[in-house]
Parts: sequence; C-alpha cells; structure tokens
Amino acid sequence: MKIRNAEILCVGTEILIGDIVNTNAAFISEKLALMGISQYYQAAVGDNPVRLENAIREALGRCDLLIMSGGLGPTYDDLTKETAAKCMGRRLVLNEEALENIKKIFAFRGKEMTRNNEKQAYIPEGSTVFQNGAGTAPGCAIEDFENGKIIIMLPGPPFELKKMFSEQVMPYLTRFTDKHFVSKNVNIFGMGESEVESRLKGFMEDSVNPSIAPYCGDGEVRLRVTASSKTVEECESLVTGAIERIKASEVGSVIYGVDTTLARALVDKLSAFKKTVAVAESCTGGLISKRITDVSGSSAVLGYGVVTYANEAKVKLLSVKPETLEKYGAVSEHTAREMALGVRAISGSDIGIATTGIAGPGGGTAEKPVGLVYLGVASDKGVRVIKLMLKGDRDRVRVLASSNALAEALREI
Amino acid sequence: MKIRNAEILCVGTEILIGDIVNTNAAFISEKLALMGISQYYQAAVGDNPVRLENAIREALGRCDLLIMSGGLGPTYDDLTKETAAKCMGRRLVLNEEALENIKKIFAFRGKEMTRNNEKQAYIPEGSTVFQNGAGTAPGCAIEDFENGKIIIMLPGPPFELKKMFSEQVMPYLTRFTDKHFVSKNVNIFGMGESEVESRLKGFMEDSVNPSIAPYCGDGEVRLRVTASSKTVEECESLVTGAIERIKASEVGSVIYGVDTTLARALVDKLSAFKKTVAVAESCTGGLISKRITDVSGSSAVLGYGVVTYANEAKVKLLSVKPETLEKYGAVSEHTAREMALGVRAISGSDIGIATTGIAGPGGGTAEKPVGLVYLGVASDKGVRVIKLMLKGDRDRVRVLASSNALAEALREI
Repeated sequence: MKIRNAEILCVGTEILIGDIVNTNAAFISEKLALMGISQYYQAAVGDNPVRLENAIREALGRCDLLIMSGGLGPTYDDLTKETAAKCMGRRLVLNEEALENIKKIFAFRGKEMTRNNEKQAYIPEGSTVFQNGAGTAPGCAIEDFENGKIIIMLPGPPFELKKMFSEQVMPYLTRFTDKHFVSKNVNIFGMGESEVESRLKGFMEDSVNPSIAPYCGDGEVRLRVTASSKTVEECESLVTGAIERIKASEVGSVIYGVDTTLARALVDKLSAFKKTVAVAESCTGGLISKRITDVSGSSAVLGYGVVTYANEAKVKLLSVKPETLEKYGAVSEHTAREMALGVRAISGSDIGIATTGIAGPGGGTAEKPVGLVYLGVASDKGVRVIKLMLKGDRDRVRVLASSNALAEALREI
Repeated sequence: MKIRNAEILCVGTEILIGDIVNTNAAFISEKLALMGISQYYQAAVGDNPVRLENAIREALGRCDLLIMSGGLGPTYDDLTKETAAKCMGRRLVLNEEALENIKKIFAFRGKEMTRNNEKQAYIPEGSTVFQNGAGTAPGCAIEDFENGKIIIMLPGPPFELKKMFSEQVMPYLTRFTDKHFVSKNVNIFGMGESEVESRLKGFMEDSVNPSIAPYCGDGEVRLRVTASSKTVEECESLVTGAIERIKASEVGSVIYGVDTTLARALVDKLSAFKKTVAVAESCTGGLISKRITDVSGSSAVLGYGVVTYANEAKVKLLSVKPETLEKYGAVSEHTAREMALGVRAISGSDIGIATTGIAGPGGGTAEKPVGLVYLGVASDKGVRVIKLMLKGDRDRVRVLASSNALAEALREI
C-alpha cells in the first residue's frame, strides 16, 4: 500500500484546556512533510472514549495514515489504544518485550513498579510494535492493508515521541512512500514579513516547485523553499536554484543563513574565523549566553559570560565606572559601552557584547520606557552602541534584545 | 445567546508542515477553560479555500463558538476572512479605523505601507471589530444570533493574538456565559507522574468537582485542580479544600508551590526571606540565570551570574584552583564545590549555585558520560554537591540540570 495523505490526532484533555502546547503535532508534521506525505488536517480531542472514537472514525474516512499521540500512559484516563483497537476490530494482548522494558526502567530508576504500569505493555493484536527507548509506553502501528488504512500510536511525552518517531517510525513509513521532498529555510533578520514579500512578490507567486512560503516570529522572517520530485538530487537542485535567486535579490543583504538560527550562525562564523565572543548581560539576564550555548560546539567560541543585574556586579566584574552609572544610569549608551569593553577585556575574547535595558513590566519611565535597550559591541575595530526601542512584554523584549545582540555580533566578525 | 461549547480552528499551512508550533491553540484553550466554555475538539487546516470552508462548516455543525486564528495577514494566501464571511453569508467592507491603525503602524515603524496591507482593513459586514493594538490585522466576530453561532477571527502572530484576546475578546465573551470555573496547579518536583498518581489514586479518581488531573513534562508534575460553580467564591473554596488535602498527603513533601514555576517560587521565597542568590554555570550556559531573570522582580534577589564555559573563566572569575581542574577535571564534585563557593564569595550573595557537567552530544566518556552533572550549593550552612545522572538530549540535560539547581536553591533557603 502507498500512503497518500495523513492526519494527526493528538489525544489529551490537557491540550483542550490549554495545559500543554502541542509540540508533538508540529514535530510529526515536519517529518511527514519531509517524507512527502501530505497532511490537510490535524486535530486534538480529549480523553473521552466516545468523542475519541468519533474522531478516529472521521479521520480514517479522510486519510490513509492516522498518527495519534498521547493517551498511552499508565493512568485510568489513558484510552487511546483501547479505542483505536476497537475502531480497527482488534483486541489488546500482552507484549512481553514491552513489559520487560517497563520493568527495566523501574529497576534503573530504583523505583517500585506500580500495578497500573503493566497496562502499558498491552498492544493491539497483530500490530507492529515500536519499543520505547526513553520511557515506559510502547508505540505501535495497526495495519489494515485490505482497506488501505494504518493507525500509528505514539506516547505523548515529547522526548519519547521524538526518539521513537525518528528512530523507528520514519524507517517504517519509507516502505509506504515513493515521492521525495526537500525543504530549506532562508533565515532573515532585520526586515519585516510584508517588506520581504513585497520585494519578492512576483518571484514568490510564480514559484510552484519549489514553492516559497514566508513565516515570521520573534522579529525574524523565514522563507521556506520546498521542492518535490522523484529523486532527492533533483529536489536539492531545485531548492538550491531558488535560494540563489533569493540571495541575489534585494532581500539578500538581510539573509544571515540557510537552515540555521542566529545563535548557530554566530557559533559557525566564529568557529570558521577562529574567533571568540564573550557576553555581558543585564536586561537579557543570561538569555544570550543560553542561546549561544544551546548550540553544541559553542564551547570553542564562548568561554565567558556574565549576568550583571546589579550595578555593583557591573563595577566588580566588568569594571564599569561608578561615575558612569551615577551620571548616566545603568540603562545608558555609556554603560553599554563600558560593559562591552569590560567583558571583552576580562575574557580576552575577540568580541564583547553587552545589553542593558528595561525589560519591564516595571522600571520604565517617560525618559527610559520599557523596551529601551542599549546594545554594546566591542572588538578590535573599537566599540559601538545600538539603541533599540522594542515593543512587547518582558519575554518579547528580552528575546528581541538577544536576537539583535546575536545579529550585531555576527555582523562584527 | 449562551455559548455552551467552542472549537478552535487554526489556519495555516505552516502548522500542517510543522513550521510553527501551535501556541495560539493552547493559549485560547486555557482562557476558554477559565471562562467555563467547554472545548471537545480543536483542529488545524491549511491555507486552502475549499478545505478551509469544509472545516468551518463542520465545526459550526458541532459548536456554538468557532474561534479561528491565522490567515488575516497581508499576503495572497491569507483567506480566513473571505472564507468565514462566505460561510456566514456576509461580504467584506472597509473598516476605516483599522485602515488608520495600519497607516499609523507603518508611520511609527518609519516604513512604507505596501499595497497588500490595505487588504487587512476589510472586515465582514456587521461584525464586532477588535482593533489590533500590536500589529496591523484587526480581528472580528461575526454573529448569527438567529442560529446561535459566532465566529471569532484573530491574527496569527501570538503576541498580537494574546493581547487582543485578553483585552477585547474575553470581555466580549462574558456576555455569552454564566458558569464560572477556577483552576489551580499544584507544582511538584522530585517525584514521577506514576508515583504521584499511585499515592493519590483513590482521592483523584473520586474527585469530580473539583477534578484533579496530572500533567508531566521536563521532570516536573503538575496536578491541575478545577472546580466549576455558579460563583467564583464557591469555586475557590472547592479548589482550596482539595489542595489542602493534597498537601496533607504523602505527596506533600515534594510540592514546591501552587500556580508557580521553580524559578518564580525561588524568587518569591528569596524575596520573602530577604536573601539573594548568585549563579555560576558551566553546562547550563546561562539557562539558570535566564530562568530566574524571566521572573519580573528578580533583580531584587539575583545580582550576579557567571557563565564559565572555559576552565580559564572558572579560575579567573570564580577562583577555582587550577590544581582542582587538573586533578579532578572540570566536571567533578570538587570543581562544582569551588564554583559554588566562588560565586557566593565574589557576589556576596546568601546562596551560590553552580553547575558543571556534560550536556552532550559530544564530550562524554565511559567514566563521565553525557548527562553527568554536578550541582554545587553554597550558603552559610556550608557547601554540598549533588551528582545527577540525567537522561536525554542536550536540551533536556540542560533543562533538567537547571530545574534541579533551582529546586536545590529553593531547599537551601
């Protein structure tokens, strides 16, 4: 059988009452898109057997492959397997390997296995089982080749789901697909979505294969370029051609990379030039360091970071002059300059970046409102300070300030 | 008209191909739950007019209130308003106030308004308009009181949607509801979901109003206690009673707060005791400082943080002895101890916390595998080091290490 289209059905009242953000749907969607399996619809339903059954039957009426996540836990309201098995006319049977895995995990954790955990080892009869390498609940695929329908069930915890999907479900699915897709993101910082699209309008509208779609968030724009073809090589070539055209356009100057992030692009460029960066943070409170060290391999380019929330810390760790703080205040061009110079000096790094600003919600004045951030960048070229006026709540001001800092550091290399 | 149940329909191909995580659905769901509006089903559909129309008609067949997000942008594939208006038999008309708002935003940004932005000012005839305080696309509600149906359309960017929903849509919706809900979360760290549930099993199963539901993620467990009643006071009293019972149970010792986070609980407790904390981070790379400074008001309790990724930084900023690094290595009990003592000393804080470990994916050995983290905690009681063996990828190891650090700091006060 060939899978033409899939749907995702996430199970859990916690989704419907907004207790969790559905990251599983996004993860699975991205992988399905890469495998060339179309998805036109996705849904979430609560832990209610009647509504769950209706949702499964409706989805199976529209798609060949239904991927479900959640509701495989040990608790009494976890009903996904029972309900899916009912829809496919199967009964649940004990899977010995799954039971062994559950026992092992409890032994490793040094915790007592509770009776309700055994329930997790029961699987719909005749299923392909995906053992759980990171948790207790096994996943499985119930196949009904006669009617061309497959239901895959995956555990809800994102870490378990991701591991199982990448390592077991994707290889399993390749036997049911024959089309290839390649998708790449052109990363842009420093130009809004409307402006990007306006400058590329004709080109974007005319692009069918590869298609070009703009996405924005946290002050960044991504252009997703996606090609489909019978071979991966042909997809790659189509995508590369479109990216070259975008780079050569008016948008070219604000592109900072392809399939990357500001932090990763910075780590990569510093590594390539054998340079280092050090970070001094006031209003961003560690976020810049955190984003840089999110990148594996960042230890080669970042050795030092300081969070100088207190004025005293700015003086003690960064040698900011007490007079500067007194005369101009902690949130000032002068302080940002001395912080950047200070962190560069103490660390012996090639580039020093610093932030000081008002993240809010408190602390703003008419003269220095919430959202005012000074960004210092020091290098062997000297030191410069950028004044930012950022709109948004505390989180957003901090994220945008850190993104601007990463972008300026990138520019400085 | 009274709204009994709602559905959310998020529009955007970017959701179906996994380009964005659907945080809007979680946000709206949480607010609806608090307003006592039930939601049994939620869905996402792409920017395709036929499938979008089908999804709207199906949802309207099941619910009284359909909340849609996304697809109000300036670009040619933004079709939500057009399609919803068609389903409700309305045409689009220019809203002058929305047009003025768009013009103002472009003037404020100092950018040229492109022709496609005008499209955003068109609204279904007779709608209640929600002007956008944070972006260009207005939202609106199309009401069909005769058939007891309302469609609300909101912009896709989360910051715009949240602001509009909280400030305008929630007050608008109160006229269509009459039941109150109160929900609180009991926060637990240091015990797994199965164990929590096992210890509270009878109580949780018997609890209908308030209901008690367990959620887990990132090493934490939350018990959500939700009561419904005709008055808020009665809800509060039901919830408080259940929380008291949970606190008095065997689970009581691992509860760190109600409706809080580890970082917020730490900031609150430090503030209450007029104490301060300083953070020295190696493997967590700024994440602990970032989590603490996420909390508004944290500047009163955290003045100093250092990210000492390099050995040299550990020596220079924290006075870790070079001999210690040589003899035991950077990832060792001894180094964690000296880092915690060092950051406490340099900052003059009451508590010093430090992390050093192998976050992975590289850098692990048989003796010191990925996931090994030493956590140092120094205070006037002395210094102690906790050895953690964490399972997961780089992100998860860092998150779990930082959560453990916050929990240990909380314990130390």
